[in-house]
Amino acid sequence: MPPADNHRVIETTFRVRFAETDMMGVVHHASYLAYLEEGRSEYTRRCGAPYAELQEMGYFLAVGEMTIRYHASATYDDLITVRTWLDDLRSRGVTFGYQVVDAASGELLVTASVRLICIDQGGQARRIPSEWASRLAAT
Amino acid sequence: MPPADNHRVIETTFRVRFAETDMMGVVHHASYLAYLEEGRSEYTRRCGAPYAELQEMGYFLAVGEMTIRYHASATYDDLITVRTWLDDLRSRGVTFGYQVVDAASGELLVTASVRLICIDQGGQARRIPSEWASRLAAT
Amino acid sequence: MPPADNHRVIETTFRVRFAETDMMGVVHHASYLAYLEEGRSEYTRRCGAPYAELQEMGYFLAVGEMTIRYHASATYDDLITVRTWLDDLRSRGVTFGYQVVDAASGELLVTASVRLICIDQGGQARRIPSEWASRLAAT
Amino acid sequence: MPPADNHRVIETTFRVRFAETDMMGVVHHASYLAYLEEGRSEYTRRCGAPYAELQEMGYFLAVGEMTIRYHASATYDDLITVRTWLDDLRSRGVTFGYQVVDAASGELLVTASVRLICIDQGGQARRIPSEWASRLAAT
Repeated sequence: MPPADNHRVIETTFRVRFAETDMMGVVHHASYLAYLEEGRSEYTRRCGAPYAELQEMGYFLAVGEMTIRYHASATYDDLITVRTWLDDLRSRGVTFGYQVVDAASGELLVTASVRLICIDQGGQARRIPSEWASRLAAT
Repeated sequence: MPPADNHRVIETTFRVRFAETDMMGVVHHASYLAYLEEGRSEYTRRCGAPYAELQEMGYFLAVGEMTIRYHASATYDDLITVRTWLDDLRSRGVTFGYQVVDAASGELLVTASVRLICIDQGGQARRIPSEWASRLAAT
Repeated sequence: MPPADNHRVIETTFRVRFAETDMMGVVHHASYLAYLEEGRSEYTRRCGAPYAELQEMGYFLAVGEMTIRYHASATYDDLITVRTWLDDLRSRGVTFGYQVVDAASGELLVTASVRLICIDQGGQARRIPSEWASRLAAT
Repeated sequence: MPPADNHRVIETTFRVRFAETDMMGVVHHASYLAYLEEGRSEYTRRCGAPYAELQEMGYFLAVGEMTIRYHASATYDDLITVRTWLDDLRSRGVTFGYQVVDAASGELLVTASVRLICIDQGGQARRIPSEWASRLAAT
């Protein structure tokens, strides 16, 4: 699951918010989904193909499937880094790979794979607009 | 802030979810906003004027202002009751009052007042459709 | 991924809250994690081995890995049912299987598998207390 | 509610995450509570009195009361700025004032006041440790 050598990896770093913790004293496992989402948002921005632009064209990327492994925990105020890369790009979908690490120690917290499907505002599966997709894929 | 005698009070009871807690070991203060929202959803259902129906007509009720007091804390697995009543109904807005109590002990957890403003899908302030409002106000 | 014949399946039914939706107009994919969590909470309650009791003994079940497939979407006010079953029980961990369905139509929304690891308050992996585990496994 | 001239105002700027929106197409009103929380976290960090340090001493600041006014809405990918200042500091509590603005246009989105109460791990009201409080109040 580590990114292949030929993948561009985009890093986003931010602090864990208090609201993202649970009574176990650590980041709640669902909070990482927002981190991954922010990771792929940043990926699309840096490629010059912001997700917000795809939405303005009338399309969404809906999560079709995801697998997440939790290796270690983070807690409030920790600085964490989401590393995001493009794993697979098809006409109607895209798969991103992720590592979330502790920004200070480099310790691996989470690895994940999220497959997204392009839909229109009626929820129908659609081809990803090729012009947007080509910007996403450019390296 | 207790409801006046002439107010219909609707009660909704449910359990605190684990995800709603934080590292203080109790329900995070923001989680109560979803509880209040569910309280007024239930209020509108019981009045035969479900909020979902207002949305289908093209309107939303956006929160304009709210005041919340936290009196005691709840935690995972606790059964809590949201008591909701209509405090004020105007042509373009509605204010709900709330008490959240521990369902087992009756202890008061939260009191709140939330003022909502009727908007259309473009975000413009609108009159609440009178037919829906009259069902909400009927006692 | 459907539950085997010899599995006890526990159903929990509740309404989608407004706060659980996103700007796609449907339930945000992360909201399902709270639904699954509530599904396994209910499973443990019905077995007479409530998770809250395990916590009181000083243990937590932390998510180690999960796989989720999203088949169809739900939205605000929909009544949904989480079907939860025990897939695997080991000395230090437990895996639950899930289906989330639309309670009215029966349409399949989500299938999931969540593997949990027993830890103590210091975050160390521990054996699940056998007395609690045996209640969980009883059929 | 604008900060008095003699108040230090700390600004924190970040992007709205997709998960923070709701089906109205804008940031859900409860998401702002996490923004305010992050605003006061940053305030304490910049004062050299990080909240995480107060927790390590065995204390929490629990929300006792809050008032929020929503003036305009933000949406996914918007860059927003939280402006936080200390409104009142007492032996057992502290009140922060806030403005949330659109970072690009400067438009006012939210104004808020949040009163926090110092508690220990058993939930009992306590004096804020004076050494931490004096760092918070220094200007």
